[in-house]
Amino acid sequence: MQSEGAAVRPATAEAPSGGRLVAALDIGGTKIAGALVDGEGRLLARSLRPTPAAQDGATVMAAVAEVLGELTADPAWVRVTAVGIGSAGPVDASHGTVSPVNVPGWRGFPLVERVREVTGPLPVTLTGDGVAIAAAEHWQGAARGYDNALCMVVSTGVGGGFVLNGALHPGPTGNAGHIGHISVDLDGPLCPCGARGCVERLASGPNIARRALENGWRPQAGQEPTAEAVAAAARAGDPVAAASFARAAQALAAGIAAAATLVEIEVAVIGGGVAGAGEVLFAPLRDHLRAYATLSFASGVRVLPAQLGTDAGLVGAAAAAFGGVLRARG
Amino acid sequence: MQSEGAAVRPATAEAPSGGRLVAALDIGGTKIAGALVDGEGRLLARSLRPTPAAQDGATVMAAVAEVLGELTADPAWVRVTAVGIGSAGPVDASHGTVSPVNVPGWRGFPLVERVREVTGPLPVTLTGDGVAIAAAEHWQGAARGYDNALCMVVSTGVGGGFVLNGALHPGPTGNAGHIGHISVDLDGPLCPCGARGCVERLASGPNIARRALENGWRPQAGQEPTAEAVAAAARAGDPVAAASFARAAQALAAGIAAAATLVEIEVAVIGGGVAGAGEVLFAPLRDHLRAYATLSFASGVRVLPAQLGTDAGLVGAAAAAFGGVLRARG
Repeated sequence: MQSEGAAVRPATAEAPSGGRLVAALDIGGTKIAGALVDGEGRLLARSLRPTPAAQDGATVMAAVAEVLGELTADPAWVRVTAVGIGSAGPVDASHGTVSPVNVPGWRGFPLVERVREVTGPLPVTLTGDGVAIAAAEHWQGAARGYDNALCMVVSTGVGGGFVLNGALHPGPTGNAGHIGHISVDLDGPLCPCGARGCVERLASGPNIARRALENGWRPQAGQEPTAEAVAAAARAGDPVAAASFARAAQALAAGIAAAATLVEIEVAVIGGGVAGAGEVLFAPLRDHLRAYATLSFASGVRVLPAQLGTDAGLVGAAAAAFGGVLRARG
Repeated sequence: MQSEGAAVRPATAEAPSGGRLVAALDIGGTKIAGALVDGEGRLLARSLRPTPAAQDGATVMAAVAEVLGELTADPAWVRVTAVGIGSAGPVDASHGTVSPVNVPGWRGFPLVERVREVTGPLPVTLTGDGVAIAAAEHWQGAARGYDNALCMVVSTGVGGGFVLNGALHPGPTGNAGHIGHISVDLDGPLCPCGARGCVERLASGPNIARRALENGWRPQAGQEPTAEAVAAAARAGDPVAAASFARAAQALAAGIAAAATLVEIEVAVIGGGVAGAGEVLFAPLRDHLRAYATLSFASGVRVLPAQLGTDAGLVGAAAAAFGGVLRARG
């Protein structure tokens, strides 16, 4: 299923981009990043602002406009043919609006329209941040060459996106792949989303730390009680720390198995801070995956660490924008 | 999303079928059904044999050949342009083989090749039976007009299939949508598939009956302890019977919510014998769905009863075959 020499192109690209660039925006609860990106996924210009997440919507938009202003001032802007936005969700790509959980000033905020006021009449592609990550890993990372992939981020939250039949699958509103909020424990602990036993409730970094603390693990003096500290303890042989990661791995395995059983993915790519725990997470994850992905067509699903780092959101927003342009040109 | 006047056409059709017919086969553990089907989904000729499921693979294939023989002998056979097969799974559409759980004589059985020996050089489309049901309900039933749908059968087992972006999503091997074997209770009861807490293990007819019996429900004198009997007791006010259906509904809701959260379906269509319980199942299902489908883009998912009956497998195999022909012709 994986072709080693696969061309390095966006998920839905059918032609190289020539000298064209796209402007990419990655909008999260802590930072707003922008870049000009070429057809090889290289970032030619960058801009960054902290997200004034606690302030009103106009103030958040002003920060986005500052990022865009730095990009439009770049001499390479003349080669920009499209804008790609990956935003913390939920988004509504069909209406061009966003309602990021961690940015309360934006509820149904018309982000695409406001970005167009800055960038002029370029096509704008909006996706959720999980979908953007999937576009990035499929274009430039660990999912390259796979036609059916789930790409996940396991961090403060758990998100993801799909490539299906060789193309990005954003879904009608751009939020598909949101694996953090499927229930794998229907009688389990209440999740802030309102459901019970969501993957995120069992497997996110804060929940790994909380579970370890509840079961008696303590960080070393001066150390914060983070998932990273739990991972270090697990590596040093602490059974409570290891058990907390194993439980997270079990929930992730059940979720990945569900995705493989529902839409036949060949690979699950996992990035984000929690994935940095390495084999503390991946070893029990592979074990549990054998237990939950039992049907013949699902049991071969592979798990791989993500290859792209903090630029994944920008690269993915660019990939989605290139894909949108190429689709529109047919 | 649903357009009332939607054209009655196969899931992937882009042109009417003219006077063309397809030959459809529906292969299950108890019966092998065949039909000639026109572009409006009408069954013009039929053939039926019991599945000699306990016998060797050649004997099972002989029964398929008898069904096909009756179809090829029909005067309308000259108008047949393609063959569609929906089979109990797992199937492997990429290799044309089937390994139905309930037909042990067929393991990696080259069904497409053997069918071609009877039908000659017509294109043959093979899908799992859940995918066929989805094709049928999208073409002629409750999912008509929806671009993103999950269609399920809840019966002795629990299966399903997807329509995504307006087209059937069989997945690379033709098994996608197998919602009966996703885990919604990761520490739950062991499922025959090897996993724990699968939707089928909690929601199939036999498991509804088993749970009711375990909790003290008893069938009336002379009545078999079936899910249908449990449904009748629930309607008559038996709280144990109602609770067993409510638990099945909870598991189905968690599974449907997972599908909506992962791939953004607009509707879940539910057929099969257990769905015949009506509001005994659907009322708690809608309640639980509100609890599990919490994200904005998933919370609007509708649940509808299936419209097609026992011919759904044949109609769906025909829809997939028409779709395949039209795709191949571009």
